[in-house]
Amino acid sequence: MAADIETVLTEIAAEMAARPDRGDVATYIPQLAKVDVGRFGIAVALNDGRLIARGDAEIPFSIQSVSKVFTLTLALGKVGDTLWRRVGREPSGNPFNSIIQLEHERGIPRNPFINAGAIVVTDVLLSGHQPREAIGEILRFIQFLADDDTVYIDHQVAASEQATGFRNVALANYMRSFGNITHAPEMALGVYYHHCAIAMSCRQLALAGRFLAHDGRHAETGHSVVSSERARRISALMLTCGHYDGSGDFAFRVGVPGKSGVGGGILCVVPGVASIAVWSPGLNENGNSKLGSIALEKLAKAMNWSIFAPKVSPPA
Amino acid sequence: MAADIETVLTEIAAEMAARPDRGDVATYIPQLAKVDVGRFGIAVALNDGRLIARGDAEIPFSIQSVSKVFTLTLALGKVGDTLWRRVGREPSGNPFNSIIQLEHERGIPRNPFINAGAIVVTDVLLSGHQPREAIGEILRFIQFLADDDTVYIDHQVAASEQATGFRNVALANYMRSFGNITHAPEMALGVYYHHCAIAMSCRQLALAGRFLAHDGRHAETGHSVVSSERARRISALMLTCGHYDGSGDFAFRVGVPGKSGVGGGILCVVPGVASIAVWSPGLNENGNSKLGSIALEKLAKAMNWSIFAPKVSPPA
Amino acid sequence: MAADIETVLTEIAAEMAARPDRGDVATYIPQLAKVDVGRFGIAVALNDGRLIARGDAEIPFSIQSVSKVFTLTLALGKVGDTLWRRVGREPSGNPFNSIIQLEHERGIPRNPFINAGAIVVTDVLLSGHQPREAIGEILRFIQFLADDDTVYIDHQVAASEQATGFRNVALANYMRSFGNITHAPEMALGVYYHHCAIAMSCRQLALAGRFLAHDGRHAETGHSVVSSERARRISALMLTCGHYDGSGDFAFRVGVPGKSGVGGGILCVVPGVASIAVWSPGLNENGNSKLGSIALEKLAKAMNWSIFAPKVSPPA
Amino acid sequence: MAADIETVLTEIAAEMAARPDRGDVATYIPQLAKVDVGRFGIAVALNDGRLIARGDAEIPFSIQSVSKVFTLTLALGKVGDTLWRRVGREPSGNPFNSIIQLEHERGIPRNPFINAGAIVVTDVLLSGHQPREAIGEILRFIQFLADDDTVYIDHQVAASEQATGFRNVALANYMRSFGNITHAPEMALGVYYHHCAIAMSCRQLALAGRFLAHDGRHAETGHSVVSSERARRISALMLTCGHYDGSGDFAFRVGVPGKSGVGGGILCVVPGVASIAVWSPGLNENGNSKLGSIALEKLAKAMNWSIFAPKVSPPA
Repeated sequence: MAADIETVLTEIAAEMAARPDRGDVATYIPQLAKVDVGRFGIAVALNDGRLIARGDAEIPFSIQSVSKVFTLTLALGKVGDTLWRRVGREPSGNPFNSIIQLEHERGIPRNPFINAGAIVVTDVLLSGHQPREAIGEILRFIQFLADDDTVYIDHQVAASEQATGFRNVALANYMRSFGNITHAPEMALGVYYHHCAIAMSCRQLALAGRFLAHDGRHAETGHSVVSSERARRISALMLTCGHYDGSGDFAFRVGVPGKSGVGGGILCVVPGVASIAVWSPGLNENGNSKLGSIALEKLAKAMNWSIFAPKVSPPA
Repeated sequence: MAADIETVLTEIAAEMAARPDRGDVATYIPQLAKVDVGRFGIAVALNDGRLIARGDAEIPFSIQSVSKVFTLTLALGKVGDTLWRRVGREPSGNPFNSIIQLEHERGIPRNPFINAGAIVVTDVLLSGHQPREAIGEILRFIQFLADDDTVYIDHQVAASEQATGFRNVALANYMRSFGNITHAPEMALGVYYHHCAIAMSCRQLALAGRFLAHDGRHAETGHSVVSSERARRISALMLTCGHYDGSGDFAFRVGVPGKSGVGGGILCVVPGVASIAVWSPGLNENGNSKLGSIALEKLAKAMNWSIFAPKVSPPA
Repeated sequence: MAADIETVLTEIAAEMAARPDRGDVATYIPQLAKVDVGRFGIAVALNDGRLIARGDAEIPFSIQSVSKVFTLTLALGKVGDTLWRRVGREPSGNPFNSIIQLEHERGIPRNPFINAGAIVVTDVLLSGHQPREAIGEILRFIQFLADDDTVYIDHQVAASEQATGFRNVALANYMRSFGNITHAPEMALGVYYHHCAIAMSCRQLALAGRFLAHDGRHAETGHSVVSSERARRISALMLTCGHYDGSGDFAFRVGVPGKSGVGGGILCVVPGVASIAVWSPGLNENGNSKLGSIALEKLAKAMNWSIFAPKVSPPA
Repeated sequence: MAADIETVLTEIAAEMAARPDRGDVATYIPQLAKVDVGRFGIAVALNDGRLIARGDAEIPFSIQSVSKVFTLTLALGKVGDTLWRRVGREPSGNPFNSIIQLEHERGIPRNPFINAGAIVVTDVLLSGHQPREAIGEILRFIQFLADDDTVYIDHQVAASEQATGFRNVALANYMRSFGNITHAPEMALGVYYHHCAIAMSCRQLALAGRFLAHDGRHAETGHSVVSSERARRISALMLTCGHYDGSGDFAFRVGVPGKSGVGGGILCVVPGVASIAVWSPGLNENGNSKLGSIALEKLAKAMNWSIFAPKVSPPA
């Protein structure tokens, strides 16, 4: 019943290293296209304090949209639930960069994890700041959560995205036309590209996610990062919206809140139990890490970590 | 910490009975429009065997789309995961009776809980059966789960829906044009209207939902109704898709898998803990029971039942 | 300059008979799929009284959507411009059987020449009639215009369409749900399928279209069929909406009002000059007769019949 | 029968000056919002050489989207029919600045008269040029057609549009993401805003449109500006796409090719007969000049100028 996490991770990492079907690396950001599709890393930060890592768990990768978990947390701290006037909480039913829904719903993105919603969140973080300051605030927050000030921004990735991110420019300007971006679109986008370009290893990312597994508290100090209600709500959003148009499938197969990025990273939370980071740069048809999703499905099954499993074991 | 469920339910029922803002009763099915908006009932079937009820918990109401949980369970038992070739597992991002998505995705409904998806599920249940037999099978399954053979079909409601359900006729024929309905559309719809017209009290519905709270097992016999994996996956679908275009909001605020119906009923599952049925016929803007949603939010908060709460309490 | 129409038609018919690329016969109505793709016929009814025909101009074919010109004319005669409260006058920007626009515009079809709009027109013609009477009225009107009571309804085609027309059932019921179909959907559809199944030869169809070329008057008696204003407006609708999602291209290339049907027929009007019917059953990617469109482009060019050509020749 | 054009125009101008219901001036370009809604002017350049003007026909106004007729003409001269690989020829079925269709059709705008299509046309005109040069070429072309080098660009309007045109920035970047804008989006937009900001009086605009009424030839020299086929095709596009989502209605009511702009101007062509410019800044619900549309309907009716009227009068 109680599988051994060390053994489980060793087996998963070995299987993933050997699999030939690894998905395709994202190509629309030139800098990301250079990453070796053969990589696979996983790290689990258990609530009991252990950190168990396998594979390429020490190699920094571009966390991309995983950063949206942290910017959302910061923005909620800054403006509270008034944020929800400017962004919805519903799954989108559309690809991550779709602009259609914005026209129908007059510039209000469906949720904070699709690109449009994350750009609104970034716009919130810009209030009263220069872009450089806002970027610094985000980076320091993640360094604080990971307890590691070597987390850095890969400026080449940021520049690469800035040079080619025409669709994000479209989204930002489109929302600006409805008044739902309040700064110059290029400023909001500048901050957005930089937080997407944050580079972290699986180890660092798992550590940074611990506050969600600890019901909102800092894992080591026990101080409140966010209220427990807010931590749970962020987890709920990760479950319903964290994997673009594959969110339903991820909830169905893995059963754990997670947020993926096109760099191939996924951050998962098992409330009260663990924070998990996995990385494999090849993506599936929904733009989520192919091997990362499979590894998480196997891990959650082996450890009985689904949030849909009984809290107390049912009678056998 | 450990709130007393009896007290909590008494307080919630009293508050809900008194609230002036009760939403609007659905009017598009004439028979449903006659229901008294003043009603409120709630029943909780705890995994420890207790059944606690408050308010109008003994009055049968039309379960409508809540029945889709049971038909999905039956259809998965019949055809297994091949069902997913004909219906998706993603939230829809559209109202419950939208036809737009079907055109873009060539007749494959997004999930089994929107009308189109539930009609496909019904079509599956028709295989090898006459409509009358399929209806009987569904009714007996629910009677078996509730351990109560007084559960019945309100034929006036079924007739009322059949006489006015032009949009469902449209959905069924539209999918038939893509080959994703395999029987005569009017036959699939006949079965669909009848299972939507099943009448149950909160007490009966909470009892019928116990197999999901018991990880797939029958509450009293312990026999497997579905595998634990399938029970969890049905719960995952309820969380991501169970409240139409308000599913994300329900997950965010209540944090518990649930399925609502336009009759004002909601069935919720707290895995390993309880099956909950609530009923209040006034609906909110997304077509879900207004007071039912509020009551569930209060109940989940008071009892710490969110599935996003730690499985083991974090260090204080 | 003044090309000889006899010679022009002889050359076009010879070229069309020989062309190997003939498009594909519509397959979604089984009965239509049996038609020989090698057919090509053309007939021109000049306003001076001459009728010139080439190729398979005496063979009856299923006029399908071309019939919508005649039902629109009848409905305008019956309810006048109040018709436009129930159907729009704008090109659809979508395929002929799209249901998406109906959801966005709450059951009001964009124009009377897409399926949804034509079904509303048929619903208008049903007022005060039994389906059989309405069908009879439409048939007799076309016989009167063609001055030929051998024009008939191919009941096998009507039955074939009725047995397979699930998407039209969807459209009719969907509009019924918005109140924009006022009879039982199956009654409106019964009439619709029958007028679509009218069989005519190119000769008969060209003759039936003469009233539009004669500014609303009957070609032989000179009596008014419709006012000249209405005749011109029907022609305007044919130009902007007559070829589904290929209407703009047809206006661009041919420059003459026309209405096509999936049976491969096209009726064109050169105001003051001629009524033209062409038939070739192979369709292009927009569902319009492939060779028919090409033949009309060549004919309009050779005869200088574009309505965008100067009414008075410009200085050479 | 043959109404006197001088009298007709005098009556129309008097009626329009007096009408109280004048529509609303466009407000989304701040500079345009300042224009007096009381203005009305009309000018008709007959093919016989007469120029008849009434009302405010000498006051320059911002021609806005009317300029797209001239940029399309220039771009077709530059790249010929290869232009149609990058822009369609179909009515859009959506508002002028909709971005939805672009997502469904992968960055290919429906036609050259909606904003997205006109920005692609501008991108074509940029090839091998600096923006300043491209703007100069467009301005000189219009001056040449109007035979009047006082036609100018209102730089305040251009700047006003540039400062607020977030939606156009969105459109351009969105198409750039599909590769259908080949220059920096801000360069294409710079040219676009400047040609939209060209200021002309009704007199000048009617003169500039003469080449279309003269089947492609310069009215005074008789030299070919475009081939007669191309002139007719541009007119066909004006008829099917010239009034945004009101194009079908304009064809139905007025029956003459026209192109409108949000400045309240409309340019119409009666092939072989006249070029017409009308201006009244109040807009109807489709964004077209309200009084301008009404005046053109009255004029076309009084003069029997519908292109759907018989070329040769039918027998009485």
